Amino acid sequence: MVQERFQRRLSAIIFSSDVVGYSRMMESDEAGTFERLKAYRRELGEPLIKVHNGRIVKLTGDGALVEFASAVEAVSCAVKIQRSALNRNTGALEDQRIVFRIGINLGDIIVDPDGDIYGDCVNVAARLEAFAPTGGIAISRAVCEQVRDHLPYAFEDRGEHPVRGLVRPVHVFVLGPDAIAGLSIIEPSLSPIRQPKPGCPGG
Amino acid sequence: MVQERFQRRLSAIIFSSDVVGYSRMMESDEAGTFERLKAYRRELGEPLIKVHNGRIVKLTGDGALVEFASAVEAVSCAVKIQRSALNRNTGALEDQRIVFRIGINLGDIIVDPDGDIYGDCVNVAARLEAFAPTGGIAISRAVCEQVRDHLPYAFEDRGEHPVRGLVRPVHVFVLGPDAIAGLSIIEPSLSPIRQPKPGCPGG
Repeated sequence: MVQERFQRRLSAIIFSSDVVGYSRMMESDEAGTFERLKAYRRELGEPLIKVHNGRIVKLTGDGALVEFASAVEAVSCAVKIQRSALNRNTGALEDQRIVFRIGINLGDIIVDPDGDIYGDCVNVAARLEAFAPTGGIAISRAVCEQVRDHLPYAFEDRGEHPVRGLVRPVHVFVLGPDAIAGLSIIEPSLSPIRQPKPGCPGG
Repeated sequence: MVQERFQRRLSAIIFSSDVVGYSRMMESDEAGTFERLKAYRRELGEPLIKVHNGRIVKLTGDGALVEFASAVEAVSCAVKIQRSALNRNTGALEDQRIVFRIGINLGDIIVDPDGDIYGDCVNVAARLEAFAPTGGIAISRAVCEQVRDHLPYAFEDRGEHPVRGLVRPVHVFVLGPDAIAGLSIIEPSLSPIRQPKPGCPGG
């Protein structure tokens, strides 16, 4: 409502974490780890987010919360982020790699005047991150339904999972690092891909 | 993509039609019918759409296509539109009533530089309108999932229906005119209603 301080809007939300080595690497080389993560963000993450019209809502030590106007743009961006991290890690020493898990959800979010965002949709994006394979992506069914006809990525159906703090289970679909490594990166098509793809139920 | 002429964004789409008497009334009193519809739009429809941050994309003789940033705002607005039409019709002669059917869907739409909108999401909103009871509202499952915890309206599950031009069936939920007549109009709550309500499956 215009009379409210808060605004509601439909958004796709990416929650990503450099979960793999962050704590361990920070112990052995705090400054170096943080510099590598910052360099990755500056040189690859932020330009990709910009190209896909994303907005970085907040950064934590090893994570990021990013809002997109479109689910197709959010998933395209996440695949490119994982693919570019993979390319960058090739040849790097194991303890100098940056490896992310990414969760993506969509829904009506609440935006406060400072630009921070709230709502179950945001919480579920953070929970989905934990379902993502290392170097991979986990999305909700709502996201899957919006992208299946426009992106050629074969997300795998992992079924419904109860999530802390939510009454209903979340239906999880994942794309693993091997699938991402084998992909040719394709821009979303304006005309839908008409063949139903596996892994994403109707509705 | 920024390099495309087109923009993608998640939106909730209302497709409404004054289906009930339009053709019949036009025959008997063309000018009067159109004036009544225009007066309704100006005095009730447009102010309600504005309050809920909607954007009228186009008007046809008896229909309207309206875009909302939020599914909760779209459904709130549709309920108020039907309720206000009901109030306005009370006491009017039968052939002078304005009665709508409203369909609501959400999804990634494509917006051209002129502001017109395209995509399956828009087509499905138009198809949903045909499933709406006279004076009522039909929504897709995607919309149902976004509003069920924030609005107290008990949409009725009508199951999946094949839709012309789409590979997959559409899961339809409806709110009839009797339910709308009995409602106290409630603004969407910022804190979710935690009890699962009937008619809207998990996912």
